[in-house]
Amino acid sequence: MDNYPSILLGNAVNQFATLPGIGRKTALRLVLHLLRQPQATVQTFASALTELKQNVHYCHICHNISDQETCSICASPKRDRQTVCVVENIQDVMSIENTGQYIGLYHVLGGIISPIDGVGPKDIEIDSLVARIEPEQIKEVILALPTTMEGDTTNFYIYRRLAPFIEGAQQLKVSQIARGVAVGNDLEYTDEITLGRSIINRTEFKL
Amino acid sequence: MDNYPSILLGNAVNQFATLPGIGRKTALRLVLHLLRQPQATVQTFASALTELKQNVHYCHICHNISDQETCSICASPKRDRQTVCVVENIQDVMSIENTGQYIGLYHVLGGIISPIDGVGPKDIEIDSLVARIEPEQIKEVILALPTTMEGDTTNFYIYRRLAPFIEGAQQLKVSQIARGVAVGNDLEYTDEITLGRSIINRTEFKL
Repeated sequence: MDNYPSILLGNAVNQFATLPGIGRKTALRLVLHLLRQPQATVQTFASALTELKQNVHYCHICHNISDQETCSICASPKRDRQTVCVVENIQDVMSIENTGQYIGLYHVLGGIISPIDGVGPKDIEIDSLVARIEPEQIKEVILALPTTMEGDTTNFYIYRRLAPFIEGAQQLKVSQIARGVAVGNDLEYTDEITLGRSIINRTEFKL
Repeated sequence: MDNYPSILLGNAVNQFATLPGIGRKTALRLVLHLLRQPQATVQTFASALTELKQNVHYCHICHNISDQETCSICASPKRDRQTVCVVENIQDVMSIENTGQYIGLYHVLGGIISPIDGVGPKDIEIDSLVARIEPEQIKEVILALPTTMEGDTTNFYIYRRLAPFIEGAQQLKVSQIARGVAVGNDLEYTDEITLGRSIINRTEFKL
């Protein structure tokens, strides 16, 4: 599918095909869809992208995405400023915000430690997390990283870096999100490792 | 997933989510991918879209997409100018060109007759096809539309419109692409209608 009847069409398809999960056939379909739209629609699309890249900031405190220097969560007076939830990326902040169950602050690592992908502790925002603990007088760090080998490695590394604050005068608490059988899942279809751990890590039944 | 931490991010996600087959989660993933790219890359992406819409033409003869008023196929002196292949859309032109088996011209209808979608004969480029036959002295029209009910309806309608040229002095020939068992398919897994027709429409075996 590389004989495009128009160079401009080929260019646009090549651009879309650089996006993750978009192959050349899908890219062509998207471009032909845009081509059928009015000029103004395509112009809005293009300028949304340009403005995004030019004007979006990363919050200088938590590294969440923001229109300002400080993101709306870090700037909000309503949030619990002594709890920080550590997440891998911005999508995770949005997912946790959507639960409506968390009122603390965040810290976006921008990745997790993964030697196989060449991502070490210095490549993600761990130093800036450690640097926040004392000045901001954080009382609890909640580790909300993926429940994968890489997530566990990162949890372990962060825990070790935070150890001085845990044992020190600040008495920092480090917790991790609960792991177990997902709500609505049948035990029959839950994988063995999850089920096994959910028995070991059982919690007291309360009414 | 509608609490975007940035309005600009939300705008870009909304734009991507208007594309066919792209949901809000995928849109967010694509936008965050673009956000990680250098400024120049995003700028190239945006301007490819703008230029596409501003500068792309539809060939005034065959309605294929083109950088010029006349597309490269209609303009080529190497093509057989007496044969016209009728296709639904631009992707079909590209697919047939990729086979390397066709040296004639094309006519892109821009759709097929589909009453259920409100597409009638006047909504697609049938009049302009009929208008080409005499002045261009076309000898053969090849119908290469989808092998669906809509495709068959459109074939039938076009055939009726071309009837005067078939019976007239021009002795126009109207053919359709072969239908039958696809190359590499087991008969066992071929649907009954295709298999039944491929027996009725059997061709002479030649070495």
